[in-house]
Amino acid sequence: MGDKMKDEKKIKGPKRIGIVDTMFARYNMGKAARAELAECPGYDETFIVISKTVPGFKDLAVASKVLIEKKRCDIVVALGMPGRAPIDKQCAHEAALGIMMAQLLTSTPILEVFVHEDESDDPDVLASVFEQRSRKHARNAYWMLFDPEQLERRAGLGIRQGFEDAGPLGLVGQLG
Amino acid sequence: MGDKMKDEKKIKGPKRIGIVDTMFARYNMGKAARAELAECPGYDETFIVISKTVPGFKDLAVASKVLIEKKRCDIVVALGMPGRAPIDKQCAHEAALGIMMAQLLTSTPILEVFVHEDESDDPDVLASVFEQRSRKHARNAYWMLFDPEQLERRAGLGIRQGFEDAGPLGLVGQLG
Amino acid sequence: MGDKMKDEKKIKGPKRIGIVDTMFARYNMGKAARAELAECPGYDETFIVISKTVPGFKDLAVASKVLIEKKRCDIVVALGMPGRAPIDKQCAHEAALGIMMAQLLTSTPILEVFVHEDESDDPDVLASVFEQRSRKHARNAYWMLFDPEQLERRAGLGIRQGFEDAGPLGLVGQLG
Amino acid sequence: MGDKMKDEKKIKGPKRIGIVDTMFARYNMGKAARAELAECPGYDETFIVISKTVPGFKDLAVASKVLIEKKRCDIVVALGMPGRAPIDKQCAHEAALGIMMAQLLTSTPILEVFVHEDESDDPDVLASVFEQRSRKHARNAYWMLFDPEQLERRAGLGIRQGFEDAGPLGLVGQLG
Amino acid sequence: MGDKMKDEKKIKGPKRIGIVDTMFARYNMGKAARAELAECPGYDETFIVISKTVPGFKDLAVASKVLIEKKRCDIVVALGMPGRAPIDKQCAHEAALGIMMAQLLTSTPILEVFVHEDESDDPDVLASVFEQRSRKHARNAYWMLFDPEQLERRAGLGIRQGFEDAGPLGLVGQLG
Repeated sequence: MGDKMKDEKKIKGPKRIGIVDTMFARYNMGKAARAELAECPGYDETFIVISKTVPGFKDLAVASKVLIEKKRCDIVVALGMPGRAPIDKQCAHEAALGIMMAQLLTSTPILEVFVHEDESDDPDVLASVFEQRSRKHARNAYWMLFDPEQLERRAGLGIRQGFEDAGPLGLVGQLG
Repeated sequence: MGDKMKDEKKIKGPKRIGIVDTMFARYNMGKAARAELAECPGYDETFIVISKTVPGFKDLAVASKVLIEKKRCDIVVALGMPGRAPIDKQCAHEAALGIMMAQLLTSTPILEVFVHEDESDDPDVLASVFEQRSRKHARNAYWMLFDPEQLERRAGLGIRQGFEDAGPLGLVGQLG
Repeated sequence: MGDKMKDEKKIKGPKRIGIVDTMFARYNMGKAARAELAECPGYDETFIVISKTVPGFKDLAVASKVLIEKKRCDIVVALGMPGRAPIDKQCAHEAALGIMMAQLLTSTPILEVFVHEDESDDPDVLASVFEQRSRKHARNAYWMLFDPEQLERRAGLGIRQGFEDAGPLGLVGQLG
Repeated sequence: MGDKMKDEKKIKGPKRIGIVDTMFARYNMGKAARAELAECPGYDETFIVISKTVPGFKDLAVASKVLIEKKRCDIVVALGMPGRAPIDKQCAHEAALGIMMAQLLTSTPILEVFVHEDESDDPDVLASVFEQRSRKHARNAYWMLFDPEQLERRAGLGIRQGFEDAGPLGLVGQLG
Repeated sequence: MGDKMKDEKKIKGPKRIGIVDTMFARYNMGKAARAELAECPGYDETFIVISKTVPGFKDLAVASKVLIEKKRCDIVVALGMPGRAPIDKQCAHEAALGIMMAQLLTSTPILEVFVHEDESDDPDVLASVFEQRSRKHARNAYWMLFDPEQLERRAGLGIRQGFEDAGPLGLVGQLG
């Protein structure tokens, strides 16, 4: 973090990362995201975290927008769990489109972090996906604000959150 | 409710919770939601309820938006029943996207409370789902305005409305 | 209609109900809607009707919005017929989302009245659905402007347009 | 065309009809639409035609919006060809929703003219559908600007573009 | 490039082409697009390239909008790879609708360049699709800014990016 950013901080105060999660999810995704951010450089100094819990994942979009507009968040991590039933996929689609619209109406990124309840039948595996995906996207949010080069150097590398990275195509080609 | 809110109330008047329901639904969901709100602390004092009935669930979105814009509602509970036919799922999707857009255009939460007619073949079970889901989301609306900590402490606990809570993943893991 | 509305009428002129229909539909839905409105109290006095015909049902949304913005309609009835092919369902979805967006951008209700060509194979039944649904939604539009209590007292009663009312759930419970 | 319109023309200049087509389509739809407009009364006098070609049909929406906003088009005909694969239907849906949104954001009609590549396996039939649908919607655009009564008198008559008219329901009833 | 454009350049500076890609994709699509643009006349003189990498393809829309609004890009190429699972198609749909909305809210073209991971099982073929589609759409972006006649003369010719051109319908008719 250079002098310029320190100066900016003096004037504008710290950056703000919003975390929105749900009562509906079966894992405390917000807690995982906050734990990751607490490990990032500058926590509670160059950036602060503002949290909110809503009933379900369809409520994430407007809550994220309000965090941006009224709490001046610079980026938001929106965490939710679509259920197993077919109708849940439709609801997830609506929730995702809402998050998309909220970003476009505010010109501010909102990272949609959804763990589908049917991604694994093994609760231990699923818990790990919840924990890792929430953490990795919290880290992505941090990078997007403070260290975008971390993303640039991973362009096209098949990076995943929650399961192992897929890797770049060439590697698969060589292995295949 | 602290002194600050009481002062605010003196100046701004009570908060307003909107309830929109439909002629199409086969259960008086608005009545259930109003009954729950009548049991909440501060009913008709710190908050008032404003109701409206529209033909069908595709009419909920604009009616909710009008309640926010012209009746100054701080939150709206939008209640509807998608039918059993495949085309009804598509219509429910349109209605839900409309409610999503209405929230984003007003930066105000609208809780979408849909009971799908095919959630149960037993009319008694279905009636209970109608009653409980309408009531629980009315309570959520109240909490969001006056007691957000109730939501925060339930984050990730697999809370449901209408059927039993799913509970957090860990518990299932232990039982499974 | 109380004195207040009469006064308002003197100043603002009559309310305006828009009717938009299509060349694509195989029944003159606009004519049916207009016939119903002609039977409503205050026709051509407390309210007037403004009509427009567009090529197909995807053209209903912007035409309705223009009636609201440029012809100052207070409500619009948008009438169309999705065809039988699978692609027609997708087109109906697009048309319906457009009507939804038009409502939200104008904060004005537009009643979407679609009769799907495959709702009946019997042309007589289908003609009756066209006629009744167009008329009943025209009446709903009238009620929404002048007599909203008509809607309130039917909340949750399983009201339908075009086929018989489904009735409230309790009745089915008793019969089942 | 009455005196009033001639006067308006003197002041405002001719009306403008936009034509947008794609490199992706396998038929020159823009050429067909322009040929039809060249046969309409007042071509290049009371109205002029402004054309643009974009890569694919997902690019039609923003190009149409720019023609309306920057080239002052009064109506646009947007011509494209969705392909045969399942993913193409999804892309067509996105393109169509974009065209819908562009209309609503500009309050200006954009006639979506899509010929699906799988509407016929016979290239001669398909070519005829391309030619006729492009021409008929160009004519519709002309009517909407200069002769709306042509649409009104065809309301509910089952008018089609590309294949034969379906006709009104009554006729089928009599034949059936 | 005529004198007029050179004059404009003196005043306004060079045009700006945005390139957004993802960590999720398994091929460096941004690199391919940049390589193509580096071969276009006027590279780094009449136009400059501004790049950004985001986590996944759902993040492309808001990043593209920010490039237009804050970096004054005149056009953006948004590059992403939807995965193989059914849920990935839904996510691709959401990402595509976001890109569509971003275009319409900015009245600026954003070329959506998606390579679906299941377009080929052969990694060499897939790599070629990634490379060629990214390059061809980068070239399209260049043409749209500086040489639109290149697009006009290809109208209706069945042009493709990534695989061979389909060609115009007539040719298939003759071969068929």
